[in-house]
Amino acid sequence: MQRIALTLAYDGARFDGWQTQPSGRTVQDALESSVAALAGHPVRVACAGRTDAGVHASAQVVHFDTSAQRPLQAWVRGVNARLPNAVAVLDARFVPAGFHARYSALRRHYAYLLHCAPVAHPLLAGRVGWEFRPVDVAAMQSGASHLLGEHDFSAFRAAQCQAKSPVRTLERLDCVEDRQNPMFGRHLALWAEARSFLHHQIRNIAGTLALVGEGKWQPEDVKAALEARDRAKAGPMAPAAGLHLVRVEYGENALQRGVDSLL
Amino acid sequence: MQRIALTLAYDGARFDGWQTQPSGRTVQDALESSVAALAGHPVRVACAGRTDAGVHASAQVVHFDTSAQRPLQAWVRGVNARLPNAVAVLDARFVPAGFHARYSALRRHYAYLLHCAPVAHPLLAGRVGWEFRPVDVAAMQSGASHLLGEHDFSAFRAAQCQAKSPVRTLERLDCVEDRQNPMFGRHLALWAEARSFLHHQIRNIAGTLALVGEGKWQPEDVKAALEARDRAKAGPMAPAAGLHLVRVEYGENALQRGVDSLL
Repeated sequence: MQRIALTLAYDGARFDGWQTQPSGRTVQDALESSVAALAGHPVRVACAGRTDAGVHASAQVVHFDTSAQRPLQAWVRGVNARLPNAVAVLDARFVPAGFHARYSALRRHYAYLLHCAPVAHPLLAGRVGWEFRPVDVAAMQSGASHLLGEHDFSAFRAAQCQAKSPVRTLERLDCVEDRQNPMFGRHLALWAEARSFLHHQIRNIAGTLALVGEGKWQPEDVKAALEARDRAKAGPMAPAAGLHLVRVEYGENALQRGVDSLL
Repeated sequence: MQRIALTLAYDGARFDGWQTQPSGRTVQDALESSVAALAGHPVRVACAGRTDAGVHASAQVVHFDTSAQRPLQAWVRGVNARLPNAVAVLDARFVPAGFHARYSALRRHYAYLLHCAPVAHPLLAGRVGWEFRPVDVAAMQSGASHLLGEHDFSAFRAAQCQAKSPVRTLERLDCVEDRQNPMFGRHLALWAEARSFLHHQIRNIAGTLALVGEGKWQPEDVKAALEARDRAKAGPMAPAAGLHLVRVEYGENALQRGVDSLL
């Protein structure tokens, strides 16, 4: 048996999330069926980050085991030939049997994109969050600073979160304004990095920081919400459309994957 | 009668171009029908840049005349309520009777977006050009430098171009690499600015500079192609999907519109 890791990009708006469902309309379902067709045997894939319905990926990482002997390019082109347009394998590589897409990951990078304009943009619908009021980016960054480091993130955790502990360590949470992208116009990216995240943690943080951006909350209110450890004390969950899984880091000797290393 | 200028964004992949067609599936057809419904009389709109099928706009400018008395917000929200999702009015303002969206424009800004990666990106299909080979950005910029300023652009002009003269003045032609956008990953934007462009001029330039980026042409070959004044001597036309109209400049006393001023 050979273990193979793939890097994937997908438009989350076109799937019912990552994880297999009876509907069969998930990214995992599409991928397993395409890989199995090429492998000639049933395949189960494991991923680095189980994205929710509507959440996108530019560099999701998965692994699977196969007895089929094929060159790496076949695992890219052959699988892509069988996949719908909304998902693509960007890269394939052989990995040691001890590699696990989820458990070997050292750090995950997400970006929450927010377009701030009075009217929603036709080119960005379903791919970016939208805020029709102007936002104060410096205030959002100030609010974000209270969440950096190791904390009990119960206030930002989904009720259905299955993690054993609500404690996570946010290694980066930056609110960056970008006016340079011709398609986007002015927009914000909230960059979040951690070894792992709680369910809905980034979307709940994004929704809370948006309140700060609009001036409804002061930056210190984010600290108070965090310390309350009560989901009801934080802001609303931001829509799935704005969230993108953009990079997964593994150790020196494992694969290094991410939009910047790949493309 | 009152003259009104609108700024529009649209997903060009969802229309048969700007200009009215018997099919009725153009941006002009959709807009005229929505504006007429709100105005209560037939309306003819004129635009700053007649984009081809598949070409996008983040800040197209149009004007029309109406006898209807309505607040500006009605020309934004009321028209948007009647438009398909693929096009939106971003802004409306009253302009003097002498203002003309096309003839008053002092400068048009376009960006040609090119995603360079071995596999096409599911989130960018139809919105960005795609080059599967790596490209040398510095070489492309060097090739672009030969096109700056006033030249006879016959080598980059569509056969069906209706302009009286093939002479145009390119005020900016910059090839900028951007790795910061979370959705895009690494991509190039070719920024082009001029008072006006010939038909297909930017797409023909983009296709020619892509040859330089791939190393098939040397930067100086662009100069030779320009000087030949023969369409057959320049490179192929780049696909419509990568082209975005991003800003139209008017005089000090007219409206100033563009993605960066608007959003």
